Amino acid sequence: MATPFQRIGLIGKHGDPTINATLHLLCDHLRGLDREVVLEETTARLLVGEPLPSIPEIDLPTGVDLLIVVGGDGTLLHAARALADQDTPLLGVNLGRLGFLTDISPNEMLPRLEQILRGEYVEEERFLLRASMGDESLHNGQIRAFNDVVLHKWNIARMIEFETYIDGKLVNGQRSDGLIVSTPTGSTAYALSGGGPLLMPSLDAMLLVPICPHTLSNRPLVVDGTSEIEIRLSREHAESVQLTCDGQVALPVMEGETVRIRKDPQRVRLIHPVGHDHFSILRAKLGWR
Amino acid sequence: MATPFQRIGLIGKHGDPTINATLHLLCDHLRGLDREVVLEETTARLLVGEPLPSIPEIDLPTGVDLLIVVGGDGTLLHAARALADQDTPLLGVNLGRLGFLTDISPNEMLPRLEQILRGEYVEEERFLLRASMGDESLHNGQIRAFNDVVLHKWNIARMIEFETYIDGKLVNGQRSDGLIVSTPTGSTAYALSGGGPLLMPSLDAMLLVPICPHTLSNRPLVVDGTSEIEIRLSREHAESVQLTCDGQVALPVMEGETVRIRKDPQRVRLIHPVGHDHFSILRAKLGWR
Amino acid sequence: MATPFQRIGLIGKHGDPTINATLHLLCDHLRGLDREVVLEETTARLLVGEPLPSIPEIDLPTGVDLLIVVGGDGTLLHAARALADQDTPLLGVNLGRLGFLTDISPNEMLPRLEQILRGEYVEEERFLLRASMGDESLHNGQIRAFNDVVLHKWNIARMIEFETYIDGKLVNGQRSDGLIVSTPTGSTAYALSGGGPLLMPSLDAMLLVPICPHTLSNRPLVVDGTSEIEIRLSREHAESVQLTCDGQVALPVMEGETVRIRKDPQRVRLIHPVGHDHFSILRAKLGWR
Amino acid sequence: MATPFQRIGLIGKHGDPTINATLHLLCDHLRGLDREVVLEETTARLLVGEPLPSIPEIDLPTGVDLLIVVGGDGTLLHAARALADQDTPLLGVNLGRLGFLTDISPNEMLPRLEQILRGEYVEEERFLLRASMGDESLHNGQIRAFNDVVLHKWNIARMIEFETYIDGKLVNGQRSDGLIVSTPTGSTAYALSGGGPLLMPSLDAMLLVPICPHTLSNRPLVVDGTSEIEIRLSREHAESVQLTCDGQVALPVMEGETVRIRKDPQRVRLIHPVGHDHFSILRAKLGWR
Repeated sequence: MATPFQRIGLIGKHGDPTINATLHLLCDHLRGLDREVVLEETTARLLVGEPLPSIPEIDLPTGVDLLIVVGGDGTLLHAARALADQDTPLLGVNLGRLGFLTDISPNEMLPRLEQILRGEYVEEERFLLRASMGDESLHNGQIRAFNDVVLHKWNIARMIEFETYIDGKLVNGQRSDGLIVSTPTGSTAYALSGGGPLLMPSLDAMLLVPICPHTLSNRPLVVDGTSEIEIRLSREHAESVQLTCDGQVALPVMEGETVRIRKDPQRVRLIHPVGHDHFSILRAKLGWR
Repeated sequence: MATPFQRIGLIGKHGDPTINATLHLLCDHLRGLDREVVLEETTARLLVGEPLPSIPEIDLPTGVDLLIVVGGDGTLLHAARALADQDTPLLGVNLGRLGFLTDISPNEMLPRLEQILRGEYVEEERFLLRASMGDESLHNGQIRAFNDVVLHKWNIARMIEFETYIDGKLVNGQRSDGLIVSTPTGSTAYALSGGGPLLMPSLDAMLLVPICPHTLSNRPLVVDGTSEIEIRLSREHAESVQLTCDGQVALPVMEGETVRIRKDPQRVRLIHPVGHDHFSILRAKLGWR
Repeated sequence: MATPFQRIGLIGKHGDPTINATLHLLCDHLRGLDREVVLEETTARLLVGEPLPSIPEIDLPTGVDLLIVVGGDGTLLHAARALADQDTPLLGVNLGRLGFLTDISPNEMLPRLEQILRGEYVEEERFLLRASMGDESLHNGQIRAFNDVVLHKWNIARMIEFETYIDGKLVNGQRSDGLIVSTPTGSTAYALSGGGPLLMPSLDAMLLVPICPHTLSNRPLVVDGTSEIEIRLSREHAESVQLTCDGQVALPVMEGETVRIRKDPQRVRLIHPVGHDHFSILRAKLGWR
Repeated sequence: MATPFQRIGLIGKHGDPTINATLHLLCDHLRGLDREVVLEETTARLLVGEPLPSIPEIDLPTGVDLLIVVGGDGTLLHAARALADQDTPLLGVNLGRLGFLTDISPNEMLPRLEQILRGEYVEEERFLLRASMGDESLHNGQIRAFNDVVLHKWNIARMIEFETYIDGKLVNGQRSDGLIVSTPTGSTAYALSGGGPLLMPSLDAMLLVPICPHTLSNRPLVVDGTSEIEIRLSREHAESVQLTCDGQVALPVMEGETVRIRKDPQRVRLIHPVGHDHFSILRAKLGWR
């Protein structure tokens, strides 16, 4: 069987000097298997010992058949948001600490990779969220999230007030520290700390988790993946509310503004070795038997 | 527009004498609207003041176009399980206390009913669970649940031990008081008391909520509605585990037995007046603003 | 029996114009009972219709035998912190919405007050927290809290890292959104939203509630009231952590700083009518039966 | 310094054949240190290979200065309840798995023991609960609990209904699966699985944790250690409610009965090596950093 992965991109976690050995090993091995390797620009500088720019930006390779992400889940979240438009499959290699998304460990990296390049892999499709405020045409789809979009208080000690709507219908008005809107992928991240349930990654559903809600019956809510979620801020909270995507990208929310969150039209394609088992990752990460 | 509801069945909550007035009113009104009314047998005896049998059994009318259930959510759960094979639409009228399923109040009953009989209604489809043990052919599909199937300790003070599998894959082994497997419908019932999230009723998903689990990271899990759930009991728990459907039907689980839970092929059809809003019921029942 | 309450201070909720009628009624009634009434300065201006200063400051009357607080729990929290050094008993009157601390409703205010002035009252002693950072002599005891001292992330989307010590012993290191250290009084406030238990107000105990902790087994902790709690911030979080007292007073926490929290030497004295019942307030506020 | 521990009792976990080596080692070592060793009867039979009685009963040695318990926390709970009247200090040795109460591991057992026998130890005082029903004189103080007294549904799938009173005052009426009344010691046991907080072992407080309560605002409650707790069962629940102490001793609760729970007059004395640290046990058992 011909493998579809001939031209392979490589991106390493920015600012982590310990990954050089892993990256070199990967490059050499891939070239030894007659693959073309394309390095993300900052990663390339890392490898030749060049000084990094002060504000590292992802400058993703285009036209690759597979992007290998070496780092933690945070690096893969970043790459997934940036690469969604290209529909490139992603493969996550961790740096020794198992991730929910970077599930291949360095010590099994080479045999797993050969396996995948032989065509023995499974592809898993996941979805992103897209958040917008005000005039949607201005944001150019930049505020994507793979884990979660979080509306949260900012710069204030008190709770904030807002109303949540699903497909135009009022869910409730609440006072809380904020609201986590999560994909199934994000259900193992911040939403879990906030008291949310675990969602199987394949579910077409979104999860809403109130953060420290004043009303004790205000519980996590699972809604259809096609829902449009609207959060309408009370007029009182000028400059005290922020919108965060994957804990990495933040935007201030103006007073009385409405935040809209829905599924992004672009999907994320994750590549796993055959035999990949989400439950085994859950067991390892959560200390289950 | 011709209404599809000409022949209408009626069932009242067994053992509740206060519903007679409501039932009489309904009967008279339906006959006045030229509908044929068919009474469930025990309900019929209620109405003429006959003594009830000691163990009331539902003897549901067949061949009706609509079944009106007068009582609480428990009565509707019972009717839904029993009637699923006939694919009859159900309409729930409560006795003054709003139910999640019996959402029409007695004081608005007559105008709502006229509205529905004029064709101004929405139909909502929900699903049931089917639980089986051992030789599945023996149970004849009797162990259906509309809210939840609960595996729980019985007659013992200690926790029980079991393993859960989804589609043949191990989720985890756990020590706990039991496990709630719930439909979206049941997410507002026992699963909520156990710490589970709310699921929109239209979701094609099932919810697993561990009851007082020993491991604190053992959290509620939302899986695809097409999943097959297997619970494999440890050999130690002879005669100390029970399987309960909707808190109403109970079966002992033998030692080392495997319980299988999946979606029932028969659906439940709920009829609501136009404008029905699940969130407004949640707000009222949970004290949200 | 001679009542100890001859000279009575009065403070109203700042910025709430609806309380004037209640304040006038109180003043007239107290004078009719031959009590000397001393108005807090801002409250006095309110009553004569004077414009309020832009930043209202509490200017509490001194040398009074009793301070009546008219407003919500927030007003009483403010007064209790400010008045602790004078050991003046406090009486809370709400504005129609029952408070945990302002438990006398306007419609029962006059008979309750007469009862209390006849000597038919119970006095309840509660304690305050005192938080300090760095050189303790600089803060002059200003950072008191009656409900809670909260260390929380500020201006950042990510979790913060810190270690907690009790009486010099490491409890744990954690990543979370912050930590609530609460008195029994505060256990019905923010700590409850964060997942903490209720503590009887008379308990000599403090409550630590982690906010959205990364580790799921990181649970609320109840420690002895005489404990000294230390929170040592990781060096990474310069300018991203804040300390808040009762959600009203905030201080930035510098990188690598240690926050110390212990019981304040000054107590709070709350006056209630005879028959006061904390559980009845809990039932009313929490919707218990 | 003269050590107070000359005559030392020894009890091993019943029914566990793997502990013989540990027991022999302990006996030899203690005799080598010129201590008199008194074996609990069943433990003695274990050591000489005698057949055990079918229902093993604890037959505790009297007149010893120290009782060493070799086993898990369950064995120590059992011994603590049985031995409370003799005021004998207890030392817990585990079988390789760290316990909250049996905190000495077999591999450090001998040096720790020598240390303790030299007088280098700390003594910690904890309290027991005493539960009674109906005519209190009949029970002869048998229903003691070191961890918790649990009222729970038995033989039924539905929730039970009861009212809780503290010192004669109604707390609330509730529908739930039951109620856990726990000592600080028990706060790491079943109460934790039920959603309760951790309590420092030295606290003079009791913890009430509702099990799967119907009302979501029905939260864990911490009350003074001197409180008298009363649970009054609804008349409906004949033969469906059980009272369990430490998950080991169970009593049926009759319809309409009142269960009274308060601190037992007898204390438990736990002996630890100098440097014992409860937080380090919590970190190890709960996977904290």
